[in-house]
Amino acid sequence: MTFNAYATKHARAALEPFQYEPEPLRPGDVEIVISHCGICHSDVHLADGDWGDVFPLVPGHEIVGTVVAGPTDRIGQRVGVGWQRSSCGSCDYCRTGDEVLCPGNQATCMGHFGGFADRIRVDGRFAIAIPEALPSDTAAPLLCGGVTVYTPLAAYAGPGSRVGVIGIGGLGHLALQLARAMGCEVTAFSRSADKEADARAFGAHHFHTGTPARGSLDLILNTAHAVPDMEAFLGGLRPRGVFSQLGAAPGPLQVPSMLLIGGSRTVTGSAIGSPAAIRSMLGLAATHAVQARIEAAPMHACNEALDRTRKNLARYRLVLAN
Amino acid sequence: MTFNAYATKHARAALEPFQYEPEPLRPGDVEIVISHCGICHSDVHLADGDWGDVFPLVPGHEIVGTVVAGPTDRIGQRVGVGWQRSSCGSCDYCRTGDEVLCPGNQATCMGHFGGFADRIRVDGRFAIAIPEALPSDTAAPLLCGGVTVYTPLAAYAGPGSRVGVIGIGGLGHLALQLARAMGCEVTAFSRSADKEADARAFGAHHFHTGTPARGSLDLILNTAHAVPDMEAFLGGLRPRGVFSQLGAAPGPLQVPSMLLIGGSRTVTGSAIGSPAAIRSMLGLAATHAVQARIEAAPMHACNEALDRTRKNLARYRLVLAN
Repeated sequence: MTFNAYATKHARAALEPFQYEPEPLRPGDVEIVISHCGICHSDVHLADGDWGDVFPLVPGHEIVGTVVAGPTDRIGQRVGVGWQRSSCGSCDYCRTGDEVLCPGNQATCMGHFGGFADRIRVDGRFAIAIPEALPSDTAAPLLCGGVTVYTPLAAYAGPGSRVGVIGIGGLGHLALQLARAMGCEVTAFSRSADKEADARAFGAHHFHTGTPARGSLDLILNTAHAVPDMEAFLGGLRPRGVFSQLGAAPGPLQVPSMLLIGGSRTVTGSAIGSPAAIRSMLGLAATHAVQARIEAAPMHACNEALDRTRKNLARYRLVLAN
Repeated sequence: MTFNAYATKHARAALEPFQYEPEPLRPGDVEIVISHCGICHSDVHLADGDWGDVFPLVPGHEIVGTVVAGPTDRIGQRVGVGWQRSSCGSCDYCRTGDEVLCPGNQATCMGHFGGFADRIRVDGRFAIAIPEALPSDTAAPLLCGGVTVYTPLAAYAGPGSRVGVIGIGGLGHLALQLARAMGCEVTAFSRSADKEADARAFGAHHFHTGTPARGSLDLILNTAHAVPDMEAFLGGLRPRGVFSQLGAAPGPLQVPSMLLIGGSRTVTGSAIGSPAAIRSMLGLAATHAVQARIEAAPMHACNEALDRTRKNLARYRLVLAN
């Protein structure tokens, strides 16, 4: 048995065809024939060596495909796999549905070979059934980007919450849709005025190129790469409001202590989501027709596709298809 | 009717004897004969003009005394008053027990005349009965300092929680006692090695002059005035751990985004507490013999006492007595 993938051997080197022998299927594992794989900025960070010596690297952790081996009742099931491919299953985090915090968690394409391939094997707990209503190509980015923005929405927002989304890109365009689907009042913040029409189409009730009015929002999701003006955005929160940082900022956030104290505001962060969160998010997406707006490319064009993501040119997520 | 107080007319000017006619007692208001008033760093900030033109200023918002006028059932009751003297009573915050966030909240000694006086009148909802077990002098600092550290403990800690307290001063020494009373495992952090014996006497199980081990704490309360090393202290939190800032830092907190994201850590702030929190905190203090360690001074020595607080010389809280 040989799997056919695309791998890079060094930081910033081109991806090249790469064959590997998969690890044996253990009880509960599934083997997936991959139909689609989205490209996330994390794949760029990995490929560029930003996160250390992770080579040889087969990128890809927004995977959709069909189970072809594993437990009998999974065969033929259409499933998605995100950033996490396994966890220990026995620690307190795993036992309480918080697998993302498991000290023994395994990443899909860091230490293992990812979704730029024809097949993959993962722990079946992390291969989540895709609802029938969701097309495979536009569902792929939900597996990482979607759940990353869904987790803080589920924790801190609900119907009527006033939610701000900074950055209208791969994560931001999903955040606008999911927040709208949850019944929130949604405000998009982007430096690019030409994104207004798209932002409104994704579900934004309001669009600003600047900063929020004082005390106007309950929750802010920061999906942008730049360090935000924390004085303006934290001040844009109501008392007990939450600022959630979802991407690695190039420098520390500068948080004025008086805005935390007066009004008991909170700055927090969030990474992906556990299997239960992925299931809830996919259900919400199916009910409300949430889907990534994608540029499709064939798997063999993965170098060009990765480069478009690196240069922030994708509108709004690149998805490779086998 | 004339109340006798000590007031300052300008920033950094001395307090001088000052008489004023109190506002009329409205329904529900109480008039209190003051026995004790603690001194908080906020009084120094007010007196020094750090928080604007608040003059003439009668400082003092850690008040204990006896009700002498107001609703019949309150007469003779020993009560405490903290930073907040009233709120609108009808907004959503007030209606849900979150009076501290009321847009119409009134401060005891900012816009009104405070506790460096023989009497005061406040909204009876903010004059909280003091449990019999608590002496008046050592209870006074609980009304502001105590509830300020209690609020985040009540929100984020419980029996067995690993709580770190940065700074062993007016707030810190109460935080150690209250955290211990709640059944937490308590670690004190101070730059002054000579505070170890006191910190342990207040309830600390552990004492460090440095920073915490990675991932060793569930909650950190920062009561120190300096800007903390956020890389070290945020990294000292477990996944989902909370860093609570309780005092105004001289500059913004420098928060590394990756420590927020990996492990979903939170940086938040807290200010005082609502009447229900003050009542809970006083009950906990009565049960566990929590009391401020104080230096007593007569009310007429308020200038010297305020200056000792300004210079961080008080061990650990100054309390004026009539």
